Amino acid sequence: MRQPSNSQMQKPEDDLFSYHFSQPGTIPGTIRVKPDAAQSEIALIDYNANQAVRLTHLTLEDCAAYLDTESVSWVDVSGLGSQEVLQQLRKIFQLHPLVLEDIINVPQRPKVEDYEDRLLIITQMVVLKEEGEGFWLEQVSLVLGQHYLLTVQEEPTRDTFEPVRDRIRNNRGTIRQRGVDYLAYALWDTIIDGYFLALEAYGERLEALENEVAIRPTKQTLTKIYQIRRELLALRRAIWPQRDAINTIIRDECSLVSKDVRIYLRDCYDHAVQIIDVIETYRELASGLMDVYLSAVGNKMNEVMKLLTVISTIFIPLTFVAGIYGMNFNPDVSPFNMPELNWYWGYPLFGRLRSRSHLV
Amino acid sequence: MRQPSNSQMQKPEDDLFSYHFSQPGTIPGTIRVKPDAAQSEIALIDYNANQAVRLTHLTLEDCAAYLDTESVSWVDVSGLGSQEVLQQLRKIFQLHPLVLEDIINVPQRPKVEDYEDRLLIITQMVVLKEEGEGFWLEQVSLVLGQHYLLTVQEEPTRDTFEPVRDRIRNNRGTIRQRGVDYLAYALWDTIIDGYFLALEAYGERLEALENEVAIRPTKQTLTKIYQIRRELLALRRAIWPQRDAINTIIRDECSLVSKDVRIYLRDCYDHAVQIIDVIETYRELASGLMDVYLSAVGNKMNEVMKLLTVISTIFIPLTFVAGIYGMNFNPDVSPFNMPELNWYWGYPLFGRLRSRSHLV
Amino acid sequence: MRQPSNSQMQKPEDDLFSYHFSQPGTIPGTIRVKPDAAQSEIALIDYNANQAVRLTHLTLEDCAAYLDTESVSWVDVSGLGSQEVLQQLRKIFQLHPLVLEDIINVPQRPKVEDYEDRLLIITQMVVLKEEGEGFWLEQVSLVLGQHYLLTVQEEPTRDTFEPVRDRIRNNRGTIRQRGVDYLAYALWDTIIDGYFLALEAYGERLEALENEVAIRPTKQTLTKIYQIRRELLALRRAIWPQRDAINTIIRDECSLVSKDVRIYLRDCYDHAVQIIDVIETYRELASGLMDVYLSAVGNKMNEVMKLLTVISTIFIPLTFVAGIYGMNFNPDVSPFNMPELNWYWGYPLFGRLRSRSHLV
Amino acid sequence: MRQPSNSQMQKPEDDLFSYHFSQPGTIPGTIRVKPDAAQSEIALIDYNANQAVRLTHLTLEDCAAYLDTESVSWVDVSGLGSQEVLQQLRKIFQLHPLVLEDIINVPQRPKVEDYEDRLLIITQMVVLKEEGEGFWLEQVSLVLGQHYLLTVQEEPTRDTFEPVRDRIRNNRGTIRQRGVDYLAYALWDTIIDGYFLALEAYGERLEALENEVAIRPTKQTLTKIYQIRRELLALRRAIWPQRDAINTIIRDECSLVSKDVRIYLRDCYDHAVQIIDVIETYRELASGLMDVYLSAVGNKMNEVMKLLTVISTIFIPLTFVAGIYGMNFNPDVSPFNMPELNWYWGYPLFGRLRSRSHLV
Amino acid sequence: MRQPSNSQMQKPEDDLFSYHFSQPGTIPGTIRVKPDAAQSEIALIDYNANQAVRLTHLTLEDCAAYLDTESVSWVDVSGLGSQEVLQQLRKIFQLHPLVLEDIINVPQRPKVEDYEDRLLIITQMVVLKEEGEGFWLEQVSLVLGQHYLLTVQEEPTRDTFEPVRDRIRNNRGTIRQRGVDYLAYALWDTIIDGYFLALEAYGERLEALENEVAIRPTKQTLTKIYQIRRELLALRRAIWPQRDAINTIIRDECSLVSKDVRIYLRDCYDHAVQIIDVIETYRELASGLMDVYLSAVGNKMNEVMKLLTVISTIFIPLTFVAGIYGMNFNPDVSPFNMPELNWYWGYPLFGRLRSRSHLV
Repeated sequence: MRQPSNSQMQKPEDDLFSYHFSQPGTIPGTIRVKPDAAQSEIALIDYNANQAVRLTHLTLEDCAAYLDTESVSWVDVSGLGSQEVLQQLRKIFQLHPLVLEDIINVPQRPKVEDYEDRLLIITQMVVLKEEGEGFWLEQVSLVLGQHYLLTVQEEPTRDTFEPVRDRIRNNRGTIRQRGVDYLAYALWDTIIDGYFLALEAYGERLEALENEVAIRPTKQTLTKIYQIRRELLALRRAIWPQRDAINTIIRDECSLVSKDVRIYLRDCYDHAVQIIDVIETYRELASGLMDVYLSAVGNKMNEVMKLLTVISTIFIPLTFVAGIYGMNFNPDVSPFNMPELNWYWGYPLFGRLRSRSHLV
Repeated sequence: MRQPSNSQMQKPEDDLFSYHFSQPGTIPGTIRVKPDAAQSEIALIDYNANQAVRLTHLTLEDCAAYLDTESVSWVDVSGLGSQEVLQQLRKIFQLHPLVLEDIINVPQRPKVEDYEDRLLIITQMVVLKEEGEGFWLEQVSLVLGQHYLLTVQEEPTRDTFEPVRDRIRNNRGTIRQRGVDYLAYALWDTIIDGYFLALEAYGERLEALENEVAIRPTKQTLTKIYQIRRELLALRRAIWPQRDAINTIIRDECSLVSKDVRIYLRDCYDHAVQIIDVIETYRELASGLMDVYLSAVGNKMNEVMKLLTVISTIFIPLTFVAGIYGMNFNPDVSPFNMPELNWYWGYPLFGRLRSRSHLV
Repeated sequence: MRQPSNSQMQKPEDDLFSYHFSQPGTIPGTIRVKPDAAQSEIALIDYNANQAVRLTHLTLEDCAAYLDTESVSWVDVSGLGSQEVLQQLRKIFQLHPLVLEDIINVPQRPKVEDYEDRLLIITQMVVLKEEGEGFWLEQVSLVLGQHYLLTVQEEPTRDTFEPVRDRIRNNRGTIRQRGVDYLAYALWDTIIDGYFLALEAYGERLEALENEVAIRPTKQTLTKIYQIRRELLALRRAIWPQRDAINTIIRDECSLVSKDVRIYLRDCYDHAVQIIDVIETYRELASGLMDVYLSAVGNKMNEVMKLLTVISTIFIPLTFVAGIYGMNFNPDVSPFNMPELNWYWGYPLFGRLRSRSHLV
Repeated sequence: MRQPSNSQMQKPEDDLFSYHFSQPGTIPGTIRVKPDAAQSEIALIDYNANQAVRLTHLTLEDCAAYLDTESVSWVDVSGLGSQEVLQQLRKIFQLHPLVLEDIINVPQRPKVEDYEDRLLIITQMVVLKEEGEGFWLEQVSLVLGQHYLLTVQEEPTRDTFEPVRDRIRNNRGTIRQRGVDYLAYALWDTIIDGYFLALEAYGERLEALENEVAIRPTKQTLTKIYQIRRELLALRRAIWPQRDAINTIIRDECSLVSKDVRIYLRDCYDHAVQIIDVIETYRELASGLMDVYLSAVGNKMNEVMKLLTVISTIFIPLTFVAGIYGMNFNPDVSPFNMPELNWYWGYPLFGRLRSRSHLV
Repeated sequence: MRQPSNSQMQKPEDDLFSYHFSQPGTIPGTIRVKPDAAQSEIALIDYNANQAVRLTHLTLEDCAAYLDTESVSWVDVSGLGSQEVLQQLRKIFQLHPLVLEDIINVPQRPKVEDYEDRLLIITQMVVLKEEGEGFWLEQVSLVLGQHYLLTVQEEPTRDTFEPVRDRIRNNRGTIRQRGVDYLAYALWDTIIDGYFLALEAYGERLEALENEVAIRPTKQTLTKIYQIRRELLALRRAIWPQRDAINTIIRDECSLVSKDVRIYLRDCYDHAVQIIDVIETYRELASGLMDVYLSAVGNKMNEVMKLLTVISTIFIPLTFVAGIYGMNFNPDVSPFNMPELNWYWGYPLFGRLRSRSHLV
């Protein structure tokens, strides 16, 4: 859609509400490589309590050897642009065609699917834009196996997992002592906590709008409120099903996730609940602000109208009286024809008339 | 209902909210053939992994021989205008009168009904209009038996199943290796995915409206928003019960649907959930846009009123002063009667008076 | 409540929201015969597969002999005005005092109550008014026993069961081959389908209002929308608990209703769901229309104000200028006192001034 | 809060939304006697099928002897102002401190609490004001034991149980043949039915407002709607938890309530549901009325503005033209200076000019 | 965010909607000591039925000896500013890292977590501001063990537990005879009851606003309503999850809480329900007030416009007529040029014209 250059509303090319769909009737499991998708990059981190190695620029075949060893193997595929790499995913990890479809045809709605010997987790990651306001939503898919974790991201450059890699590399915390389910938790926790970062900005924007509405509401104010509501709606859409997904894992006692890690996921669940809580609160505040704004607009109009009415009520009758004495009835032909024009006290009397009408 | 020719709102003859009902007291199972319904056409596709045949221009009796064979038999009846064909349906497929009623007296609300040896699925298909905006909703009824699938459509010409037929014909994907339950899934999946096609247009229309509201809202803007809300409401009404219906099959572990196909239906269910999610999001955006629109209207009025008030506040008092000096009080008879009219500096002094009142 | 004769809103004496209540502290089971209630009329239809008889103008004692025979006995009592008849009801049918109270002290909220050897069903029937728009809601109570069905209606003249009687009389459909539970279903189904008849009018009224709002909204438009919402609210109140009641019978597998008839009730349930669905849809449409209406009113005001402002902005300053040159400053006493009044080109110059101010 | 004497909104000293709370940290079970509470009065009714006695002006110790006899003993304490009486309650009836607190520190939220050998029921009674509109909400607490019922009311003078006492005294209905659980039911039923009395007024007030809004809306109209919504809100708050409380007794099959009485409570439950239903309906109607009112206000403004615009559009341009010909340009010095002032047909031509501008 | 000095809306630095979050990817269990947090103070109260001691200015190591004795030990840590104290907490009480995180990284959402040998309770305490309106929300965390209770508060100076300490010190009530679970209940009850104190102010503020809206609505009125809604929203957010938390303990029959204390918690639960009930009621009232306010603003504008229209409708036509007779058409050159200016009755006739136009 073309947009005029003097657009007052920021162009919503942010794709916050995009969704994937295939042509009806497509064979289920058909994957679609978008022409502008980034080339796929593959990285492998393999670690246990004693050591950790990180390999990049390798192929999925290279990874295959690591998958069934006791050590934790984290295969990270970033970028959905390489048809052959994506096709290999299916073979190496023996994925159900529908799983592959969910991983590659992004964005999908977050969910958990239990295939007994593996667990598919679809999540949405919030990535703040560097240049200022706004954010991207990016799908991160996790396939959790017995000894490996496969993560698939949309963009190699927007990764937010560096702190986790750092914990593995430098053996910080207990991550190296724990299994692959803890790694999955750690990554998901990182994704969830990213929403707090995004929400922070909205608290401040709402506060600024509270003042703007109270002191000097402008035409743009409501558009700003609409923008905030729109973006909060996008965040809510992304986090809500993730909350349900975490809960599914905790409640269904999925065999691939140990009881110990479920306690950590409970913490992660609490965070998701808190994020939803904050979003709903902000939405209510935004909604309340809009009411205040609309009333402020109404009040401003009231004041303008009052001024107009005061001016008109005073001067329109006076102008009429002045108009009367500007009439050219000939006072000479009749004593009725405004003899006061020739009175000695005529003008002063008119002045008294004027001041009396002021009282009216 | 007659409509004037200069209607500003597109005539809602789209029947998006129509529903079927019989006269109260009618014998249950009574079917009603609409006079303008299309003639029924019958097509049969019979296939297994090795071969596939398609027969058209045949009668239901011709089909009967195929129904109990091991191969998958798909009987498609399009058009609800032929009384005798519809009556035969009951006999050939041994349908409960209420099933026949649901199939023929369209539109019914989507649902699943389990009659043990067969499964009735009522769905609503979205068919985009060729000439541009808008869509039809058409009922497609599926009766799933042990080895056959009966589909009944309203219109022969609006079929959207061609991609599935193509997959059978050319043995693409795994459809030929699978049973009749997979066929039912494949068709329903095609129907569900059709909603994404319809939704695509609304994303664009909303984006266009976002700009229209922000830059140059017109009288038609709100009518457009109302139209969008109205059509989204129709889509929601059609998809919501289908989601429940799919869930019923997955959850109740209906014996005619294999565990394997249930995994595919879970995917289909996810699509339905995503469609509902998109519809709700669009509805919220439309709702927010309306608020912005109403405020834009209020702001425009505010500006118009301000201009009026500024003009009036400046000129009405001035006109009064000019009116005073236009009065015909005779300055000759009295020193009070506006002697300034005869002053040397009278008019310049009036000028100063005017500029002072400007400051007011 | 007295109402002025020039009422613009149709007098809501339709009693759509009336409800029955006894004085607090009344003995439970106390029945109240309204003074204006119609005299009770009793009719009996007794049938089996071979024969059917209809008796009218008989007493409840006359009916007693039929109740325990194998044939289906339908006792219909219409009119709640005969104290002695109503008291007999209790004795002949051995009703719990609370059942009698629910049957006679109308209107009650629809419900099902299972007394093991009999089933009480309270329903609300929609009866369209003959003279045009609008409808009555009438309570129909059904008491289902082993071999008999007792129905109690408010008014003898508003019965809608004729089609069912006709099916019994002429042995149409399977009703004569079936038990008393099927008869109860057939009557309830007739009552439920009556709501579709009532809803039909609202679809058309809403469509008419869509055009009215878009083309020439008047002061009455919103009142009409309010009326529609009000009446839909009444319908919703009546149908919603009936849906729950049907569901109770299906789900609780009440012993007096055979499995076979439960399949028919499932159809009846579907109808109730569809009716609720249509009502909710219409309510949303009415709600959306109101928004469009309010915005149309706002837009009309905007246009009026713009016209006023354009006229005022052009002519008020001009009038001021004309007023200046109408002042009587004496050009003779001073070269400053508007010498242009005596210029050769004075008036044409004023004309240029006027056209320049047009540009402003 | 002080209120000006010319208050337009009735002073909300009705306490409809009051609630009890203790200072944080108070010992649980601490009771608070309000200084303005009425003195406690004690009455005992003891009855069985054969006889009934009523004793007043007795002490709680006097009652103790009756409590464990087979006959039904109803101890009624009215007025919460006598510290020593209230303290005795605990001893005589062996109440848990929290029960005593709930009984005396009114108002509490209605609820049922099962202490195995006794049942605590907190209810809210509606008492209509004698002087006209409005009502009080009063807590009535019931403690149901094996053979006794203790009722505690806030005010001796607002009792609504006289009809039940009359039924006991005169052996009307079956109350004398039944146990103490039936008595509890009879009292609660009386309380619930009191809500119907209160609701009756609102149906009429809403109907009156429907006409007021349609014919001559005033500034007070919305305040009246607000009042109705406010009072309905208070009623809803009081009845809603009572519905849940009744349901708890029916569903949990509390041992102190016989199966027979549970059937009666089911009737009582139906009444509570109907009351909630009516309240919600009235709230929706009130809400719809407010929309109509606001639109009526908007329409009135529209009309006023149209009149202003018509007047201004006609006369402001005319006044300007008249102003032109009132200018004092000297027609003598130039043929351009309004020679039409001296034309023979000048004034009639001005008349045509005027009528042409009418067409504009 | 900077705020102008003439802010009309009180600066929302109350932090009612703040929430804690860690940088994404932080090791779970990482605690964050805020630089401006108060120094931690430790107090120990150890009591049984016979004696009670209170120790302050001690270290957590000093407390360790008391924890496993039979007597009840209450360790209270106030202030979250001392890193070493907080680290010791983990060691002394053997807390799970996630528990420590929840306790120290405030504010968290209220919840209960059962770790079998201990129970974590996160609550939010309302502390009224001394200087007048408004309140703080402060997290109080309780860790309930077999014989000890650990409480952690944010601020040493805002403690509201003094009444409970007093009951222990002076052996008032039964607290000294009971276990540590009763102590936990007593503290939580104190916290919950604190909400009633906060709510009291809102009842009064709403009542004041009801009058303000009805009598003299100002520009600030809506801002005040918005403030009330905003603060009620904060209270609701804090109490709602606490209600769920209490219910979890009662329902799950947590082993650390005796059956006896669960009865007291049921009372506490009732209070929480009542608080939520009051908050929702106040929110509805505030919402209704806003509608009345907006309508009052509309009505005021209507009146202003009516005055303007009346004045204009009377005087603008009159001024035009006066303007006509102020025109300088020369009556000498033509009988058509306003001969009435020279009529004997000219001016009186103009007077009649004026009075007739009044009637218009």
